Amino acid sequence: MNTTIAPRINMAADGPAFSRIVLGLWRLASWQMTPQERVSFLEQALELGVTTLDQADIYGDYQSETLLGEALHIAPGLRQRFQFVSKCGIRLVSPQRPAHSIQHYDTSREHIIASAEQSLRAMQIETLDLLLIHRPDPLMDADEIAAAFTQLRESGKVRHFGVSNFTPSQFALLASRVPLVTNQIELSLLQMQALTDGTLDLCQRERIVPMIWSALAGGRLLTQEPTASPQLQRVQQVLQQIAAELSLPVSTVALAWVLQHPSRPVVLTGSGRLAAVREAVQACTQVLSRENWFRLWTASAGRSVD
Amino acid sequence: MNTTIAPRINMAADGPAFSRIVLGLWRLASWQMTPQERVSFLEQALELGVTTLDQADIYGDYQSETLLGEALHIAPGLRQRFQFVSKCGIRLVSPQRPAHSIQHYDTSREHIIASAEQSLRAMQIETLDLLLIHRPDPLMDADEIAAAFTQLRESGKVRHFGVSNFTPSQFALLASRVPLVTNQIELSLLQMQALTDGTLDLCQRERIVPMIWSALAGGRLLTQEPTASPQLQRVQQVLQQIAAELSLPVSTVALAWVLQHPSRPVVLTGSGRLAAVREAVQACTQVLSRENWFRLWTASAGRSVD
Amino acid sequence: MNTTIAPRINMAADGPAFSRIVLGLWRLASWQMTPQERVSFLEQALELGVTTLDQADIYGDYQSETLLGEALHIAPGLRQRFQFVSKCGIRLVSPQRPAHSIQHYDTSREHIIASAEQSLRAMQIETLDLLLIHRPDPLMDADEIAAAFTQLRESGKVRHFGVSNFTPSQFALLASRVPLVTNQIELSLLQMQALTDGTLDLCQRERIVPMIWSALAGGRLLTQEPTASPQLQRVQQVLQQIAAELSLPVSTVALAWVLQHPSRPVVLTGSGRLAAVREAVQACTQVLSRENWFRLWTASAGRSVD
Repeated sequence: MNTTIAPRINMAADGPAFSRIVLGLWRLASWQMTPQERVSFLEQALELGVTTLDQADIYGDYQSETLLGEALHIAPGLRQRFQFVSKCGIRLVSPQRPAHSIQHYDTSREHIIASAEQSLRAMQIETLDLLLIHRPDPLMDADEIAAAFTQLRESGKVRHFGVSNFTPSQFALLASRVPLVTNQIELSLLQMQALTDGTLDLCQRERIVPMIWSALAGGRLLTQEPTASPQLQRVQQVLQQIAAELSLPVSTVALAWVLQHPSRPVVLTGSGRLAAVREAVQACTQVLSRENWFRLWTASAGRSVD
Repeated sequence: MNTTIAPRINMAADGPAFSRIVLGLWRLASWQMTPQERVSFLEQALELGVTTLDQADIYGDYQSETLLGEALHIAPGLRQRFQFVSKCGIRLVSPQRPAHSIQHYDTSREHIIASAEQSLRAMQIETLDLLLIHRPDPLMDADEIAAAFTQLRESGKVRHFGVSNFTPSQFALLASRVPLVTNQIELSLLQMQALTDGTLDLCQRERIVPMIWSALAGGRLLTQEPTASPQLQRVQQVLQQIAAELSLPVSTVALAWVLQHPSRPVVLTGSGRLAAVREAVQACTQVLSRENWFRLWTASAGRSVD
Repeated sequence: MNTTIAPRINMAADGPAFSRIVLGLWRLASWQMTPQERVSFLEQALELGVTTLDQADIYGDYQSETLLGEALHIAPGLRQRFQFVSKCGIRLVSPQRPAHSIQHYDTSREHIIASAEQSLRAMQIETLDLLLIHRPDPLMDADEIAAAFTQLRESGKVRHFGVSNFTPSQFALLASRVPLVTNQIELSLLQMQALTDGTLDLCQRERIVPMIWSALAGGRLLTQEPTASPQLQRVQQVLQQIAAELSLPVSTVALAWVLQHPSRPVVLTGSGRLAAVREAVQACTQVLSRENWFRLWTASAGRSVD
């Protein structure tokens, strides 16, 4: 076992420095850890250089931030060693939010501020390093969001702002009013759309670093039966070939494929197993040959490049 | 019956001020009004604060502007009280234009200027407040259109310019040569594409106000049999529920849904019935809750938000 | 036979001047010409004003540039009379490149420079007037390409740079780092997508001249059986009608339709027959009426304009 450490990268010209591998906590509630086990897991992640934690108000049916807060309460020194990311803008129908009658978006100034403040309370921290609008809201008023962001920054509650799942057009709209340091988007060998629909072009052009969710396609690249789809079968086969050739775990190869994009993305890992985090970190130092990168692209696309 | 008056809004930084409800006259010929009835209808619209009239050279098979002109001829004082919008750039095959052998676009300098001058003559007015290119012409030469617009402005014949049915890319092209104050586009609970294809993003980003046509889906939201499509059935059902809950006409709810977009659109009404205009004006002061707005969005999309 | 000469056009504000008709040499190897026949063909093209030659490293399975170089070797005076365009960025699996194990893209600095230098050697010239990235590479690092372009320009090996088959987003990304003078794209009466997807909007907006490949749809407009598709049947029928009405060759009409776009494109001809080049040159001075242009558009689209 090597001792690779996740490197750090500046997310934008005036953005925060994040670890290339980010610990995604959307399944934290399902990991069934005691508060002390959560502390241990966080400490082990730190030893791998994984210093950035990704949350959202709604994760774990509005419970994930609280679970993290319990860990930070019993190990308060951890707060200084992590960067904290959270999101807002979705209202779920949930026993936790009995007032909600329909799942909807809310990017009003009041909701953004209240949600960020609730995230701080739940996580028992004083400042978010980054707050994202979780989904593009058709009722998004860019001036109103900018006002909310400005108020949160001036009050010291949030340092930087970004978006998630935004099209280039939606990003350009909000960025015309307030600086954004990232767009958190989906990219994997089973979902390559961001390569061609302009999303990653815009990141590179604006010199902002994308955050990638579902880089292992929700784990399907590793664990789903290859018979699920011809695409999955092709991709798994080539992944296994390359992994064997390079003596690397399959997940490391799949994540290296994503990390190699010239926008220099940071990648979320959503696993509660330290071995999985370690395989992700290992991907940060692997550079696939162009031939291997395109063997995987070709397997995913089901055709050669033009 | 309340006495709501349509508010006014500035269409762009240096744009004209229009009423949020605009009287669309594309069916004027079919209303079968005498000139004096047209005058009465216009006067009653004015009392509701509806001060903007939307025309095009081709409406009513090239007859609608003339019918309006007849009314203005017998009630010349109305000219000062309205803002006049017209469009050009389509050539229809019509008995009124025997030289046209095929329906096509023409955004040549000569045609734009001749069409605007003809609109002024037909409507018996001296100045258009706004002239729109009616459809994106694949042969659109942005420099040539800009030259035509400049000539029309300098001669005092047209005060402001815009487009209709333009994509963001087409808008950006023409706006790179000449200031545009609006894009007149389709948006309704049966046609939500402009919410996500970048069209409304661009309006908000450039701080221009869109004009919305077919906000009631050509009346289908109100009068078509719900069996026409599952989408129509879903939308009509939720519209009727919300209308009942708020004690509002269905059309008022449907138009409030459009007016609520953060680009602050103005909305065309195409009806010759004063009651319909009144229901439209009433929508200007209704603010739907986010839950209700997304109940309607969800009915139209046939799915919950992500 | 008239004596039309292809006019020249500046490709961008600081770009090269090219002939409106460009000799595309991607099929040069299949023309089965002796070196002297190649010289004669080039000289006859020059007499028609066709002064721009379009190549790529990969044309003719990496052989086409060498065949051109043989001609220039025995007629060295031709070098001063032509503008030379080549492309790079694709790696084919080929007996000529035994190291390539899979068809892929390579826009690394090393490959761009090595490929351009190889093109110069093969064509036996000292400078390329224009070098294009042949296809959008998902691994394109805009800063790295800009560095390669700058090095090639400063060493005097390439004067200008551009791209081919880039979307507007991809173009904007690379143009944010280094000036581009063209996008070489497909446009014909069987492929009108560039008219509406923003590609030609961007060219016009940025005042760069597109280069058009496959303007005769690979010859299908002229020679394919009309039964191949309803679209082809409609287009061929209208082309033949208009050609008869104007007493012009069908290919001249089809190319005039492309040349008439307000972006003022230059058009590649891929034929080794001088008569075909002459028909292409003849298109430069034909201006179709708007009615005729839209008759062809309508035949291609299978519907009237809106």
